[in-house]
Amino acid sequence: MTSRPPLANCGLSAGKKARLHRILYKHGLGNGTALFLPYDQGLEHGPRDFFADPTAADPRYIVRLAIEGGFNGIAIQIGLAEKFSWDFAGEVPLILKLNGKTDIPADYRALSPLHASVEDAVRLGADAVGYTLYVGSPAQDADFAQFRTVRQDAHRFGMPLIVWAYPRGEAVEHKGGKDTFYAVHYAARVASELGADVVKVNFPHPEKNTGVPDAYRAKFSSQDAIDQVVQAANRTMVLVSGGSLASDEAMIEKAEESMSAGATGLIFGRNVWQRDHDESLRFVDRLREILAKYPTP
Amino acid sequence: MTSRPPLANCGLSAGKKARLHRILYKHGLGNGTALFLPYDQGLEHGPRDFFADPTAADPRYIVRLAIEGGFNGIAIQIGLAEKFSWDFAGEVPLILKLNGKTDIPADYRALSPLHASVEDAVRLGADAVGYTLYVGSPAQDADFAQFRTVRQDAHRFGMPLIVWAYPRGEAVEHKGGKDTFYAVHYAARVASELGADVVKVNFPHPEKNTGVPDAYRAKFSSQDAIDQVVQAANRTMVLVSGGSLASDEAMIEKAEESMSAGATGLIFGRNVWQRDHDESLRFVDRLREILAKYPTP
Amino acid sequence: MTSRPPLANCGLSAGKKARLHRILYKHGLGNGTALFLPYDQGLEHGPRDFFADPTAADPRYIVRLAIEGGFNGIAIQIGLAEKFSWDFAGEVPLILKLNGKTDIPADYRALSPLHASVEDAVRLGADAVGYTLYVGSPAQDADFAQFRTVRQDAHRFGMPLIVWAYPRGEAVEHKGGKDTFYAVHYAARVASELGADVVKVNFPHPEKNTGVPDAYRAKFSSQDAIDQVVQAANRTMVLVSGGSLASDEAMIEKAEESMSAGATGLIFGRNVWQRDHDESLRFVDRLREILAKYPTP
Amino acid sequence: MTSRPPLANCGLSAGKKARLHRILYKHGLGNGTALFLPYDQGLEHGPRDFFADPTAADPRYIVRLAIEGGFNGIAIQIGLAEKFSWDFAGEVPLILKLNGKTDIPADYRALSPLHASVEDAVRLGADAVGYTLYVGSPAQDADFAQFRTVRQDAHRFGMPLIVWAYPRGEAVEHKGGKDTFYAVHYAARVASELGADVVKVNFPHPEKNTGVPDAYRAKFSSQDAIDQVVQAANRTMVLVSGGSLASDEAMIEKAEESMSAGATGLIFGRNVWQRDHDESLRFVDRLREILAKYPTP
Amino acid sequence: MTSRPPLANCGLSAGKKARLHRILYKHGLGNGTALFLPYDQGLEHGPRDFFADPTAADPRYIVRLAIEGGFNGIAIQIGLAEKFSWDFAGEVPLILKLNGKTDIPADYRALSPLHASVEDAVRLGADAVGYTLYVGSPAQDADFAQFRTVRQDAHRFGMPLIVWAYPRGEAVEHKGGKDTFYAVHYAARVASELGADVVKVNFPHPEKNTGVPDAYRAKFSSQDAIDQVVQAANRTMVLVSGGSLASDEAMIEKAEESMSAGATGLIFGRNVWQRDHDESLRFVDRLREILAKYPTP
Repeated sequence: MTSRPPLANCGLSAGKKARLHRILYKHGLGNGTALFLPYDQGLEHGPRDFFADPTAADPRYIVRLAIEGGFNGIAIQIGLAEKFSWDFAGEVPLILKLNGKTDIPADYRALSPLHASVEDAVRLGADAVGYTLYVGSPAQDADFAQFRTVRQDAHRFGMPLIVWAYPRGEAVEHKGGKDTFYAVHYAARVASELGADVVKVNFPHPEKNTGVPDAYRAKFSSQDAIDQVVQAANRTMVLVSGGSLASDEAMIEKAEESMSAGATGLIFGRNVWQRDHDESLRFVDRLREILAKYPTP
Repeated sequence: MTSRPPLANCGLSAGKKARLHRILYKHGLGNGTALFLPYDQGLEHGPRDFFADPTAADPRYIVRLAIEGGFNGIAIQIGLAEKFSWDFAGEVPLILKLNGKTDIPADYRALSPLHASVEDAVRLGADAVGYTLYVGSPAQDADFAQFRTVRQDAHRFGMPLIVWAYPRGEAVEHKGGKDTFYAVHYAARVASELGADVVKVNFPHPEKNTGVPDAYRAKFSSQDAIDQVVQAANRTMVLVSGGSLASDEAMIEKAEESMSAGATGLIFGRNVWQRDHDESLRFVDRLREILAKYPTP
Repeated sequence: MTSRPPLANCGLSAGKKARLHRILYKHGLGNGTALFLPYDQGLEHGPRDFFADPTAADPRYIVRLAIEGGFNGIAIQIGLAEKFSWDFAGEVPLILKLNGKTDIPADYRALSPLHASVEDAVRLGADAVGYTLYVGSPAQDADFAQFRTVRQDAHRFGMPLIVWAYPRGEAVEHKGGKDTFYAVHYAARVASELGADVVKVNFPHPEKNTGVPDAYRAKFSSQDAIDQVVQAANRTMVLVSGGSLASDEAMIEKAEESMSAGATGLIFGRNVWQRDHDESLRFVDRLREILAKYPTP
Repeated sequence: MTSRPPLANCGLSAGKKARLHRILYKHGLGNGTALFLPYDQGLEHGPRDFFADPTAADPRYIVRLAIEGGFNGIAIQIGLAEKFSWDFAGEVPLILKLNGKTDIPADYRALSPLHASVEDAVRLGADAVGYTLYVGSPAQDADFAQFRTVRQDAHRFGMPLIVWAYPRGEAVEHKGGKDTFYAVHYAARVASELGADVVKVNFPHPEKNTGVPDAYRAKFSSQDAIDQVVQAANRTMVLVSGGSLASDEAMIEKAEESMSAGATGLIFGRNVWQRDHDESLRFVDRLREILAKYPTP
Repeated sequence: MTSRPPLANCGLSAGKKARLHRILYKHGLGNGTALFLPYDQGLEHGPRDFFADPTAADPRYIVRLAIEGGFNGIAIQIGLAEKFSWDFAGEVPLILKLNGKTDIPADYRALSPLHASVEDAVRLGADAVGYTLYVGSPAQDADFAQFRTVRQDAHRFGMPLIVWAYPRGEAVEHKGGKDTFYAVHYAARVASELGADVVKVNFPHPEKNTGVPDAYRAKFSSQDAIDQVVQAANRTMVLVSGGSLASDEAMIEKAEESMSAGATGLIFGRNVWQRDHDESLRFVDRLREILAKYPTP
């Protein structure tokens, strides 16, 4: 069913394999799947994202949630990592997000600037780094050039590289928008072609097909679409993202389809912490039940 | 008939000669010709190119095809090279493609950003590097500057440099488009003037002459055109590309004309793997029959 | 009559003096004058320039012509230098052209991007480097910045720096065009002010004075004009260019006026090789007769 | 019988695997064994080694011998590589020896200084580098420090690292000399512990046991000894050296024992070329017969 | 008779070939031979060497002698090059000597420290650099390491590298001294193995054989000895040195034997300028007569 390759077949160096083994087998369910907690929304959208549950504005609360919820890692920006990672060092893996931007300017020529280095991640004891690549943006020249330095440093330091592969920019909008099967499928492949060890994608919407290339006009089920996304990524492991807060049932269904398609795991932020503490953990439990069904030996 | 220079007369350093000798005489037919399998379409066009034969989405399938088909090399991007080249290391030469882009934004000011270095290629044991130069693009300043660093590194490491010389951009469109004899002829020469060891061109269409400079308005046969393209490249070896999937007979005829003109080889991707496995190998056999007729001692 | 300064009075470092001495006294007539063969048209205009005499597409033919014709140097781009300069190393001085562009995009904001370095020239045993400066182009900030790195490297390595000083761009067009006395006069001075050791100019046309500043509306003979151009350049030696193929008599007359004005030499490309071999050498003989009349001790 | 690991199980990076695959499967017998021709004696002992067959003073003769004899590689110093490797580039793999010394000063504190870099090897298209480590020398601090830079560069460039592991220096002499089982056994392990991909050892002499540590005083057959040497090296492949010219039968017997023990190959210099051309090839044929019996799939 | 390879067969890069072509074909007899004037004795022995002819203390006098005598180059240290090379720039090739020492301390562990760089030589317009390698010195570790940087820079800049290969140090003294056939033979080979383009040796004395290795105890004529020295150097060109002032007839005879053996030229300093001006030129004429008999096409 699942086409997920075991870690030993992913073409990884010793250092990357060691760190991913820690994430996938020494944390969370320890069965080769992953559940990540991203917490970069304070930069990407601003602190208004914390209005839903003001305690979520405090990184210590998020860290506690990650530990209680049995997450395999927490993804944060350098500022929070510098000030808070000491507290939970070794208890839950740190994924240092290396770039990011505010959403104040428009996204026509989206580019996410680097504000931290792989060496920062090594220094802080992180087990992976994250990079946002805006696939299809007219600024792809600058993005690819910037990404090259990150990939080369990640190789040099044996640090797993997780790419947030986001279709973005005016050309993407003209071709159906960022959530189409076309856009997500292409984004997953681009991350893989450029050297991601893990790629984070949003769940594709094959039913949105206005403006997409002809090949994507056919009828695809959502399971078909996510299957192909995972296959396009091949030896690059796939994480499926929750995106903005949605109905739990919809989320759970997508999670199930993703894991069934061979994704390695899920990365859910706002869906988790934009509710009260106990609700959060209950939702996390449902996600863990799904992951438990898809172990990789 | 053929004006192809032997390797010893191509003005190559010891390292470049060693690596090209390996490609041309230790793989494929071993007669100084080359058949390359390019597999960068997942980045350049997106994974929709694999819909024709979904097994082609898997790099392992392509590598197997390259080995079974007796190819002289496989051209891939850094991400796939990092994760898959170990598997076939030494069995079929790796050509690391150093730049590339998605086709999502428009091509008015086309530029293909670097996402890997010649040193990456050395580290992976590649036998050549590939660079896409968009000849005639308004972004030629940035392109030439970027290319200079690649050429200098390729010299420093004795690594053969294959230039995908593609006429592109709004000015090219105004002067007849990217397939004219004018555009292809000029592109081959530019690659040679800037320091390519090998140049990949699309087959020229002398019959398309609307908008081209007067000198190209005369009647040229397609053999005349490819002859002149090879001569313009001089000591830079020429590879002729298959382009998008076309009729086999048309492809075979162009292949024959190219080799007769003194081209060193062919680089066929979609025409090979956008069909089923056995069909692919049958088509490859026909290409190899042509190459067998044009040995260089 | 002539205002040409001897080499010892040109403010040159030991390395620049050694290399210019070689060019001016160990090659050609050996009398302190120079006749250069430029062969960068394959890049600047494309290979259609070779349709007049197809043998001229082959760099070996051009090198042979330079040796037979007793030229003081041959100016080529890096690609041809890498592949062909070994063949004639030391027999005729190499002038490595460091920048260049295609003529496919329009020239409104002309800029000639660097594709080689002074260190490349040193490595190849060149005796000078060439740089095209588009005087008056709106892109002059990028041009001057790029030129500064070349000038500094040329100083560091003792390498003579020849500037192709070409008025170009939309502002030049609005002020009379690139061939006016105004434009050529200004270009020669700019090269001298920015650090050229030698400047290559096109012959000025004082009769073209529509749009030029008032000071250039007066009646100037062509001898007056070229005299002033050479004086404006001062200790920067002047080479006068043949430009596109013109009548022999017109060329010879301009050559005579140039040398009489104190130019150090001539740089003739298409006028030489866009005709058959014996015709080329006959025309060169006429140029050499002129140079012989203007020795510098 | 043999404990030789296949290439895929040697813990190699893609680049090292690609280059070793070429050496072991694209040259010589192509069965995973190797026969190397070392030609550094002109530096190590001086040109008097060529008095036995003066034609051997000419590197071109040695290269021809390597090609005719079907060797898997030729090991030479940088000076000969610079001047001769172009001639045979790609026909027989180049192993660039990075250090070496004359035998004029005494060996009490032996150290072999670096005179070339891994980058030189990359540039020349070499498929491996060689480093002489004088195991047990009082100068081992300088030696290890020097070796570290080589190992790191070899990793950086994916270049296989062959260590000539030679027990040497006054302390070795006091403990039984350089040929004892003790010394060779220890040397093989040191190379493996410090990061050699391949180790070249001299055949151990367990019967020489004066002065060796007690553990080596027991009775060991020569097969026992070489078995243990190969096991000590583990995933580091072993080459056994011929040393100075000895009787053919003795050499053949040692070669047989070495391959039976799991060595990957043989490295024979003076035993090959210190005789006349046809004798050399006849001796090589006998070595190849042995290698043919020990393929690694 | 002569085994001297033509320049095109010496394995040289374009830059090295260009500069050596200039030295060998554009200066002196222009027939591929060379006569060099070394003038580093003021550093190596001190100014007492000028007592024989006090005018020789003035570098301008030596330069004039080099020009009048038709030398192919003058070898000086950086200080004199900085202050005097401008005067003769381009008239006679400059060979910049990069290392040197005083003879005040004893030579037991001889090492000649670098005091200038290849880049200095490029800047001054030199056509070659010189390096003294003390073959067999106990300081060979430091010497080889130092030499490596020079060789790599010489490669990088295309600058011919002339090695003064001098057997020296206590071990050499114990094995017969610096003038034996053994020592000179070995020194020539070491220079060649380490990457010299040209090697300067003293004439070997096969009759001095006390203490030399057995192989050198046989009877060798002086012609045999110099023949073998030239063969040992192979594609590294050989210059034979005059050494300290000796009888003209002895010098002439050695010069003749050297050229007959295939040496490329002679390097005579004290024998030339430790006599009065006209005598110097008369002696030079006799040397030129010999060189004239051994052209290389």
